[in-house]
Amino acid sequence: MKARVEIMLKQGVLDPQGEAVRHALSALGFDGVGGVRQGKLIELELEDGLADPEALVREMCERLLANTVIESYRIEIPGQEGRA
Amino acid sequence: MKARVEIMLKQGVLDPQGEAVRHALSALGFDGVGGVRQGKLIELELEDGLADPEALVREMCERLLANTVIESYRIEIPGQEGRA
Repeated sequence: MKARVEIMLKQGVLDPQGEAVRHALSALGFDGVGGVRQGKLIELELEDGLADPEALVREMCERLLANTVIESYRIEIPGQEGRA
Repeated sequence: MKARVEIMLKQGVLDPQGEAVRHALSALGFDGVGGVRQGKLIELELEDGLADPEALVREMCERLLANTVIESYRIEIPGQEGRA
Protein backbone atom coordinates (compact mmCIF):
# COMPACT_ATOMS: atom_id res chain seq x y z
CA MET A 1 0.00 0.00 0.00
CA LYS A 2 1.09 3.56 -0.67
CA ALA A 3 1.29 6.42 1.82
CA ARG A 4 2.04 10.05 0.97
CA VAL A 5 3.56 12.55 3.35
CA GLU A 6 3.58 16.27 2.61
CA ILE A 7 6.06 18.22 4.70
CA MET A 8 6.05 22.02 4.68
CA LEU A 9 7.71 24.65 6.80
CA LYS A 10 5.37 26.01 9.45
CA GLN A 11 3.82 29.45 8.92
CA GLY A 12 6.22 32.18 10.03
CA VAL A 13 9.36 30.13 9.45
CA LEU A 14 11.68 31.79 6.93
CA ASP A 15 11.85 29.83 3.66
CA PRO A 16 15.12 30.77 1.95
CA GLN A 17 14.61 28.12 -0.72
CA GLY A 18 11.17 29.49 -1.54
CA GLU A 19 12.61 33.00 -1.70
CA ALA A 20 15.36 31.83 -4.06
CA VAL A 21 12.76 30.26 -6.35
CA ARG A 22 10.69 33.45 -6.27
CA HIS A 23 13.69 35.56 -7.27
CA ALA A 24 14.58 33.12 -10.05
CA LEU A 25 11.01 33.19 -11.35
CA SER A 26 10.98 36.99 -11.44
CA ALA A 27 14.39 36.99 -13.15
CA LEU A 28 12.79 34.80 -15.84
CA GLY A 29 10.05 37.37 -16.22
CA PHE A 30 7.34 35.69 -14.15
CA ASP A 31 6.03 38.72 -12.29
CA GLY A 32 3.04 38.65 -10.01
CA VAL A 33 4.31 35.77 -7.88
CA GLY A 34 3.49 36.89 -4.37
CA GLY A 35 5.18 34.08 -2.49
CA VAL A 36 6.77 30.66 -2.96
CA ARG A 37 7.03 27.96 -0.31
CA GLN A 38 8.91 24.75 -1.01
CA GLY A 39 8.50 21.51 0.92
CA LYS A 40 8.99 17.78 0.58
CA LEU A 41 6.69 15.13 -0.80
CA ILE A 42 7.51 11.58 0.27
CA GLU A 43 5.84 8.49 -1.13
CA LEU A 44 6.19 5.34 0.97
CA GLU A 45 5.52 1.80 -0.24
CA LEU A 46 4.29 -0.06 2.86
CA GLU A 47 3.44 -3.74 3.24
CA ASP A 48 -0.25 -4.59 3.09
CA GLY A 49 -2.32 -5.64 6.06
CA LEU A 50 -0.87 -3.19 8.58
CA ALA A 51 -3.23 -2.67 11.54
CA ASP A 52 -2.69 1.10 11.76
CA PRO A 53 -0.60 2.36 8.85
CA GLU A 54 -1.27 5.98 9.72
CA ALA A 55 0.14 5.60 13.23
CA LEU A 56 3.22 3.94 11.72
CA VAL A 57 3.74 6.75 9.22
CA ARG A 58 3.08 9.36 11.92
CA GLU A 59 5.86 7.81 14.02
CA MET A 60 8.17 7.83 10.98
CA CYS A 61 7.43 11.54 10.57
CA GLU A 62 7.98 12.33 14.23
CA ARG A 63 11.27 10.41 14.40
CA LEU A 64 12.83 11.03 11.00
CA LEU A 65 10.92 12.45 8.07
CA ALA A 66 9.92 15.84 9.51
CA ASN A 67 11.71 18.30 11.76
CA THR A 68 8.64 18.97 13.86
CA VAL A 69 10.16 22.10 15.41
CA ILE A 70 9.90 24.01 12.13
CA GLU A 71 7.94 21.68 9.85
CA SER A 72 4.37 20.40 9.78
CA TYR A 73 3.36 17.25 7.94
CA ARG A 74 0.23 15.84 6.37
CA ILE A 75 -0.25 12.12 5.87
CA GLU A 76 -2.37 10.79 3.03
CA ILE A 77 -3.17 7.10 2.92
CA PRO A 78 -5.65 6.10 0.20
CA GLY A 79 -8.83 5.50 2.13
CA GLN A 80 -7.62 7.38 5.24
CA GLU A 81 -6.86 11.14 5.81
CA GLY A 82 -4.80 12.76 8.61
CA ARG A 83 -3.25 16.08 9.56
CA ALA A 84 -0.58 16.81 12.17
CA MET B 1 -4.74 32.59 -5.51
CA LYS B 2 -2.73 29.54 -4.56
CA ALA B 3 -1.25 26.94 -6.89
CA ARG B 4 0.46 23.73 -5.80
CA VAL B 5 3.07 21.87 -7.83
CA GLU B 6 4.10 18.33 -7.00
CA ILE B 7 7.40 17.31 -8.58
CA MET B 8 8.55 13.69 -8.47
CA LEU B 9 11.29 11.75 -10.18
CA LYS B 10 9.99 9.81 -13.16
CA GLN B 11 9.53 6.05 -12.80
CA GLY B 12 12.79 4.21 -13.42
CA VAL B 13 14.98 7.13 -12.38
CA LEU B 14 17.24 6.22 -9.44
CA ASP B 15 16.21 8.04 -6.25
CA PRO B 16 19.29 8.12 -3.98
CA GLN B 17 17.54 10.41 -1.51
CA GLY B 18 14.60 8.02 -1.26
CA GLU B 19 17.01 5.12 -0.76
CA ALA B 20 18.80 7.00 2.00
CA VAL B 21 15.50 7.64 3.77
CA ARG B 22 14.56 3.97 3.42
CA HIS B 23 17.84 2.86 4.98
CA ALA B 24 17.46 5.37 7.81
CA LEU B 25 13.91 4.16 8.48
CA SER B 26 15.05 0.55 8.68
CA ALA B 27 17.94 1.55 10.94
CA LEU B 28 15.32 3.06 13.24
CA GLY B 29 13.47 -0.23 13.23
CA PHE B 30 10.76 0.56 10.68
CA ASP B 31 10.80 -2.66 8.71
CA GLY B 32 8.38 -3.46 5.93
CA VAL B 33 9.04 -0.26 3.98
CA GLY B 34 9.22 -1.49 0.41
CA GLY B 35 10.25 1.77 -1.21
CA VAL B 36 10.60 5.49 -0.58
CA ARG B 37 10.46 8.21 -3.22
CA GLN B 38 11.10 11.82 -2.29
CA GLY B 39 10.03 14.81 -4.36
CA LYS B 40 9.28 18.50 -4.04
CA LEU B 41 6.08 20.28 -3.14
CA ILE B 42 5.92 23.94 -4.17
CA GLU B 43 3.15 26.33 -3.15
CA LEU B 44 2.86 29.47 -5.25
CA GLU B 45 0.93 32.60 -4.28
CA LEU B 46 -0.26 34.06 -7.59
CA GLU B 47 -2.12 37.29 -8.19
CA ASP B 48 -5.87 36.95 -8.72
CA GLY B 49 -7.63 37.39 -12.04
CA LEU B 50 -5.09 35.58 -14.19
CA ALA B 51 -6.63 34.43 -17.49
CA ASP B 52 -4.92 31.03 -17.51
CA PRO B 53 -3.07 30.40 -14.24
CA GLU B 54 -2.41 26.78 -15.14
CA ALA B 55 -0.62 27.67 -18.35
CA LEU B 56 1.49 30.16 -16.40
CA VAL B 57 2.44 27.59 -13.77
CA ARG B 58 3.10 25.00 -16.47
CA GLU B 59 5.57 27.37 -18.10
CA MET B 60 7.22 27.99 -14.71
CA CYS B 61 7.61 24.22 -14.33
CA GLU B 62 8.99 23.75 -17.82
CA ARG B 63 11.50 26.60 -17.49
CA LEU B 64 12.57 26.41 -13.85
CA LEU B 65 10.72 24.38 -11.24
CA ALA B 66 11.08 20.89 -12.72
CA ASN B 67 13.89 19.17 -14.56
CA THR B 68 11.60 17.66 -17.14
CA VAL B 69 14.26 15.18 -18.33
CA ILE B 70 14.04 13.21 -15.08
CA GLU B 71 11.10 14.73 -13.24
CA SER B 72 7.36 14.85 -13.82
CA TYR B 73 5.13 17.47 -12.25
CA ARG B 74 1.52 17.81 -11.31
CA ILE B 75 -0.19 21.17 -10.99
CA GLU B 76 -3.08 21.68 -8.60
CA ILE B 77 -4.99 24.93 -8.72
CA PRO B 78 -8.10 25.03 -6.50
CA GLY B 79 -10.91 24.68 -8.95
CA GLN B 80 -8.69 23.36 -11.76
CA GLU B 81 -6.72 20.01 -12.11
CA GLY B 82 -3.79 19.20 -14.47
CA ARG B 83 -1.18 16.50 -15.08
CA ALA B 84 2.02 16.73 -17.11
